[in-house]
Amino acid sequence: MRAPRGTQDILPGTSEKWQYVEKKLTDICRRYNYKEIRTPIFEHTELFQRGVGDSTDIVQKEMYTFEDRGGRSITLRPEGTASTVRSFVQNKLFGLPNQPTKLFYIGPMFRYERPQQGRLRQFVQFGIEALGSDDPSVDAEVMALAMNAYEELGLKSLKLVLNSLGDKQSREDHKNALVQHFSPHKEELCADCQVRLDQNPLRVLDCKKDKDHPAMATAPSILDYLNETSREYFEKVKAHLDVMGIAYEVDPNLVRGLDYYNHTAFEIMSEAEGFGAITTLSGGGRYNGLVEDIGGPETSGIGFAMSIERLLMALEAEGIELPIEDSLDCYIVALGERAEKEAVRLSYQLRQAGVQVDKDYLQRKMKGQFKAADRLHAKYVVVLGEREIEQDAVSVKDMKSGEQIELPLDKIIGFLNKKLAGGNE
Amino acid sequence: MRAPRGTQDILPGTSEKWQYVEKKLTDICRRYNYKEIRTPIFEHTELFQRGVGDSTDIVQKEMYTFEDRGGRSITLRPEGTASTVRSFVQNKLFGLPNQPTKLFYIGPMFRYERPQQGRLRQFVQFGIEALGSDDPSVDAEVMALAMNAYEELGLKSLKLVLNSLGDKQSREDHKNALVQHFSPHKEELCADCQVRLDQNPLRVLDCKKDKDHPAMATAPSILDYLNETSREYFEKVKAHLDVMGIAYEVDPNLVRGLDYYNHTAFEIMSEAEGFGAITTLSGGGRYNGLVEDIGGPETSGIGFAMSIERLLMALEAEGIELPIEDSLDCYIVALGERAEKEAVRLSYQLRQAGVQVDKDYLQRKMKGQFKAADRLHAKYVVVLGEREIEQDAVSVKDMKSGEQIELPLDKIIGFLNKKLAGGNE
Repeated sequence: MRAPRGTQDILPGTSEKWQYVEKKLTDICRRYNYKEIRTPIFEHTELFQRGVGDSTDIVQKEMYTFEDRGGRSITLRPEGTASTVRSFVQNKLFGLPNQPTKLFYIGPMFRYERPQQGRLRQFVQFGIEALGSDDPSVDAEVMALAMNAYEELGLKSLKLVLNSLGDKQSREDHKNALVQHFSPHKEELCADCQVRLDQNPLRVLDCKKDKDHPAMATAPSILDYLNETSREYFEKVKAHLDVMGIAYEVDPNLVRGLDYYNHTAFEIMSEAEGFGAITTLSGGGRYNGLVEDIGGPETSGIGFAMSIERLLMALEAEGIELPIEDSLDCYIVALGERAEKEAVRLSYQLRQAGVQVDKDYLQRKMKGQFKAADRLHAKYVVVLGEREIEQDAVSVKDMKSGEQIELPLDKIIGFLNKKLAGGNE
Repeated sequence: MRAPRGTQDILPGTSEKWQYVEKKLTDICRRYNYKEIRTPIFEHTELFQRGVGDSTDIVQKEMYTFEDRGGRSITLRPEGTASTVRSFVQNKLFGLPNQPTKLFYIGPMFRYERPQQGRLRQFVQFGIEALGSDDPSVDAEVMALAMNAYEELGLKSLKLVLNSLGDKQSREDHKNALVQHFSPHKEELCADCQVRLDQNPLRVLDCKKDKDHPAMATAPSILDYLNETSREYFEKVKAHLDVMGIAYEVDPNLVRGLDYYNHTAFEIMSEAEGFGAITTLSGGGRYNGLVEDIGGPETSGIGFAMSIERLLMALEAEGIELPIEDSLDCYIVALGERAEKEAVRLSYQLRQAGVQVDKDYLQRKMKGQFKAADRLHAKYVVVLGEREIEQDAVSVKDMKSGEQIELPLDKIIGFLNKKLAGGNE
């Protein structure tokens, strides 16, 4: 029996990296005052049709959609924004006194794609959403948080790519220009792009198949179609990034794969060598209008999401080791039936006192137990033998220095806690 | 648009409780030296048919089973043990030098049941599995960890209920006795029990419908059918619990709803008033044989799982408040365009320095910004006005004492970090 294709098990040795990364991300959210939201793994299918967009690849090709036992169409969430916005609307978070509502989430998402390096069918996304403000400083804050997260984990080869998709009017003007520009070449474009040209011409710019078509290079840039409001907005966002000292590159061809973006759109790329073909680490943007599409009141929103799998790949590509300790505070070596009982009691008490303890469960001899302690990188080994039990004593060996001392049994908890202080919380 | 029936959103204000509980459980696992494993949300359906048991309610009635786009039958995991064992086998963890393999998991599970108090269709389970030892001290350790977790979170009204289901031979003998005992009453039992009597007579004892049938009270007890090995095993488990000072009650009618248990079976109940009809907080047991059923080598195993939702309900029933801080380190009040820019820069720098910061994003006036700071329970408010900017200075107000001082702008990070030290990591 194997895990389904495109999914993976995260095992000890690797799960500690996930814990570390998640803890770091949670702490960064604390500092930026984003609070955690957890939405269900599946939603009514309609949510994603409306909230991600009917014309997107995600909705058209990649969703895990099925009927539940009650005959309702259910879909495993392919991304986090639609669910977060649904929850914001359903739970009337827009009515709370503290606005904007700043949320983060972290959890599995599902897309039925061809599994490949850096692309799994179940993957984990961390994301944030700020709902209820259209102040450009929120846009800058979202990007700052994203960059901050990567930088604190140690990544160096990062590039922030930025664009503005403008407001509704600017988008409309640009869309018309795109249709006019590409229509004479329609027959030369791929089948998908021929449909896109009717449904969502902006996404032609994002096509991987047609990216070398000569008409691409000369396509009208959204930046030339921004009206004054949109241009001003974009200038303010950039000014805020400048004041924080965050470098970025403007790319007028940056179009996100989702339908709902306007104004700010951005991606963070890894430029690390050996990172592979997929260089995008995360992306996000502003989605004024989405809350209304999902049935809520007019509310501005902006967010971004990153894949943890890609983050870990980027760390590896840059040769960054996360500071994870692989050791054990204390291993208890016990010999004989009375000692075994004492070991059960002592390990229980030490664990209650905060000490990390393991022992033998395979009736190994002394030598085998010491070997196990070594393999687990035990800092201290406590020995309970017949002689020690007789005298209500234990031997403790400091595995680093090799020093060994004998202690009364009732002193061992205090002794270890003092020795280990600082290493544990 | 609403979340699907039987699922819930966990919102800020509540998600902090989840974080607290998960952090506590993770720390307890650290002390007991259980390492995290993460398996996929869905598995091939066959895994649960084999690993949970074809005759169980879970497999027969409650699974979210569907076909993926490749036509494979996939099921959202209804529990964590089968997946953990599948991963143990697939990744050959039995071959690693450190045995037993001690694992924990925490994540969503899915059962299509009628939603009711304490029973959701998506719920979160924390569980541990120890694979590769049949030493009775492992059984005791698993129960100790479970009790430890509840106790450290503050629960007082706990009851550990224990039984032995014996080894294969003991179970067989008991099964025969049960069939003989219930057969004369077969027609009086519920339809489910009539099937159970053929398929798995042990589970008749677990029936909620027939629990008042007179034959129940006189049913043969498994404890009378334990052979010597099984009886000795049970005695050792109890002796280990005794030595740790963990109280328990033996209940020969305790039969877990899953097919795979043998020897030790246990449940932890809440006896808190107002906890409701469902009093079981968690359960577990030994499952020697399951690893082989899933295609691995002969390996002993034991584990337990708890629902986090029920844990939180029990905490509420006992009136226990988790120690969660609802405050903000620092709120920045900014007035005027230059100050707003400075606020963006300063908040970025403070956050990088570890301080939790928020600011205004709604162009509120001074009074509105101070009100927001109050609502967020800010410990310090930093004021950036035209005058302050002019002088490269900030005002800082300690919101608890009301004290306000002025500082050079470049001293504020050091000042706040010193004041807040101890409160943050």
